[in-house]
Amino acid sequence: MANVSRGALQFANSDREILKAYLPPKDGNDEIQRPFTTLTFATSLDSSLALSPGTQTVLSGPQSKAMTHYLRSRYDAILIGVGTAIADNPSLNCRIEGVGGYGGNGLEGQPRPIVVDPYLRWDFSRSTKVLSLADEGKGRAPFIFCAKEPQEEKVKLLESLGGKFVILGISDTGPLKGRLDWVDILQGLAWHGIKSVMVEGGGTVINDLLRPHYASLIDSVIVTIAPTWLGQGGVVVSPPRRVSAEGNYLAAARLKEVKWHPLGEDVVLCGKL
Amino acid sequence: MANVSRGALQFANSDREILKAYLPPKDGNDEIQRPFTTLTFATSLDSSLALSPGTQTVLSGPQSKAMTHYLRSRYDAILIGVGTAIADNPSLNCRIEGVGGYGGNGLEGQPRPIVVDPYLRWDFSRSTKVLSLADEGKGRAPFIFCAKEPQEEKVKLLESLGGKFVILGISDTGPLKGRLDWVDILQGLAWHGIKSVMVEGGGTVINDLLRPHYASLIDSVIVTIAPTWLGQGGVVVSPPRRVSAEGNYLAAARLKEVKWHPLGEDVVLCGKL
Repeated sequence: MANVSRGALQFANSDREILKAYLPPKDGNDEIQRPFTTLTFATSLDSSLALSPGTQTVLSGPQSKAMTHYLRSRYDAILIGVGTAIADNPSLNCRIEGVGGYGGNGLEGQPRPIVVDPYLRWDFSRSTKVLSLADEGKGRAPFIFCAKEPQEEKVKLLESLGGKFVILGISDTGPLKGRLDWVDILQGLAWHGIKSVMVEGGGTVINDLLRPHYASLIDSVIVTIAPTWLGQGGVVVSPPRRVSAEGNYLAAARLKEVKWHPLGEDVVLCGKL
Repeated sequence: MANVSRGALQFANSDREILKAYLPPKDGNDEIQRPFTTLTFATSLDSSLALSPGTQTVLSGPQSKAMTHYLRSRYDAILIGVGTAIADNPSLNCRIEGVGGYGGNGLEGQPRPIVVDPYLRWDFSRSTKVLSLADEGKGRAPFIFCAKEPQEEKVKLLESLGGKFVILGISDTGPLKGRLDWVDILQGLAWHGIKSVMVEGGGTVINDLLRPHYASLIDSVIVTIAPTWLGQGGVVVSPPRRVSAEGNYLAAARLKEVKWHPLGEDVVLCGKL
């Protein structure tokens, strides 16, 4: 390939094949109510995403990293919560060889970063990684899903790079008081032309979406597990337990159509909720 | 086979092959200081052994169960903490086809149950499962490792079935104050002719042995992971975090020589500390 960018990653075709059944259809229906939604994240053996809140922790190996970037090329959007945006300053682009900015044309194969930030806590600038990559033509500018009016200057900056704010209504009563509802967020994504989304984190977002209440919104789950115990006090993926009518504890969630795929030192678990 | 007992389990030769590098040598040295020690347990994706303390939780599938019983046939002893003995009333025998009591001769292939019970909290009787199996010739009676003098009647009962109490010294100062030291327990096992031991749980025992302090005592780790999130509040395997000289958090433990082996719906992780 003539113009492969530095930093481009490769992911073997044999490994791609295993993921196929858990990915969005390549020719999706245009008239969708919500996007094909995949939860995807990497944990330690003790289900930690990071050593402590706000600490970016490298858990999985190079092959798992390449897989994440391959996945990103297969989705219209990547979604994270505001905590992750602030803690990690993530790139949220796709660096797999052949996508736009890494040997491909324009922004082809680059997913749209989505940041869920109800109260606009994320104080980004043109030098924030995801914005500067958009500026360089190596990724798209984010859509920020929020519940309040953004500042004029942030709107201008975001829109100048091709991003935008999406303001959603928020409930002031009931269990969702003061919070965005995932049903609204996913519907909002569909309205903005997004037919598939991978939800990458952080802990709060993943634990919320693993609750039985939202299981019907999730089309697949792809978890990478690294052979490490991070130890007590980390950012843990563990949704609330369920309780039976008789008051007994029940497992929070179980995957079906399970496939385990060793990848380097890690294992990749694919399943459906 | 003529006299295979009901309830005998089978475990495929191809699956046995994968475990080989993590098992004790078949012809061990007689003059050992401590036994070949393997940590083996089954967790959920969120690293829980059980839904709550004292709840026995079936996590892994039938193939993983057969694997556990195959493993038991390869070790001289199975060790558990007193909490597990009380909560689960476990069998702690080996039901793999061909061992003693399940188609084989005498007690051949039956491991010795070891219960670590410093203050003799376990109030067993002849009808306690592990003792009644010993009575039926389907397993061995336990050795109980403790730090105080047992009651005469318990000694008699245990010895009548072939078990015994092993009294170890306990420290009244320092970090091990009031606790048995694993170095003493493993040395005690060696003195009683036990050349290999698999440590099956529970949470307190596993988390203690995963600490860097004891890593040199552990020869291998075999973890089965089921594709379920049990949810917050379970009995979690997660050792204490390490802290660097600069005060940064470090992962508690990482496995090396890692092998992942899908087994039914579960995955088996083999490694060394």
